[in-house]
Amino acid sequence: MDYSFKPIGLVHSPFQKIEEVPREKNLHPEGFQSIQGTLEIFPEFAAGLEEIDGFTYLYVIFVFHQAQEKKLISHPPHDGQPRGVFATRSPRRPNPLGLTIVRLLSREGRFLHVQEIDMIEGTPILDIKPYTPKDIKSDARFGWLEKFQT
Amino acid sequence: MDYSFKPIGLVHSPFQKIEEVPREKNLHPEGFQSIQGTLEIFPEFAAGLEEIDGFTYLYVIFVFHQAQEKKLISHPPHDGQPRGVFATRSPRRPNPLGLTIVRLLSREGRFLHVQEIDMIEGTPILDIKPYTPKDIKSDARFGWLEKFQT
Repeated sequence: MDYSFKPIGLVHSPFQKIEEVPREKNLHPEGFQSIQGTLEIFPEFAAGLEEIDGFTYLYVIFVFHQAQEKKLISHPPHDGQPRGVFATRSPRRPNPLGLTIVRLLSREGRFLHVQEIDMIEGTPILDIKPYTPKDIKSDARFGWLEKFQT
Repeated sequence: MDYSFKPIGLVHSPFQKIEEVPREKNLHPEGFQSIQGTLEIFPEFAAGLEEIDGFTYLYVIFVFHQAQEKKLISHPPHDGQPRGVFATRSPRRPNPLGLTIVRLLSREGRFLHVQEIDMIEGTPILDIKPYTPKDIKSDARFGWLEKFQT
């Protein structure tokens, strides 16, 4: 059975095309922290943004709408070694769903100005959720990623 | 434009029906920590689980497949006050997508035994992603939720 979803908005990003997203930023702790963009929520969903302003961070669930292949084995840029796709955040996955935490700078009506954008211009947004205290996991191990932490 | 996704697996949970999920657990810091279940990944996607074992926490993106209404205003159980749905984790949202962080206890082939389950039996899983160091946001404010933190 398939499940079908309609975008609630779009990402506006300084990156126009996939090739412009600097993959090497994934290797640095500061990553995409300085990249600013805007989440445009369509008018019919704007009422759902009430009280979102109080949260510093938001989860954005979006579609990797330009991801071409669906792979089960991925080769992250860190060292190019093969890894199961569910142990990576690669865009080429069975369901091309992306998950990014953005920092909310300000809201102007149905426009959320945010930082830490790693999506491209026009990315369809499926959902936005607040980052809550339960999402802070301080006792985590990070598998193959650990040797790349500084 | 609609986007369509096929489940990669199913949640096995002690909760058979929505009514059995104790909503009041959302009010407690320990929440659903002790609730165990299993994520069954369908055989055709099992290769994507390689190396997932090294991660303590996993994001599960799933479908609230029994959520009936789509609401823009939600009334969280904390105090029953109205809030924009995107400032809550309510299941009744424009796209019924759920996001839960589970603790991985062990993997047996394509079965992941996990803790911190708040989904019901048979919940369709769309994606699994590792919880990485960038997902720890220690400087966050939590809007309306803050007054319920202990």
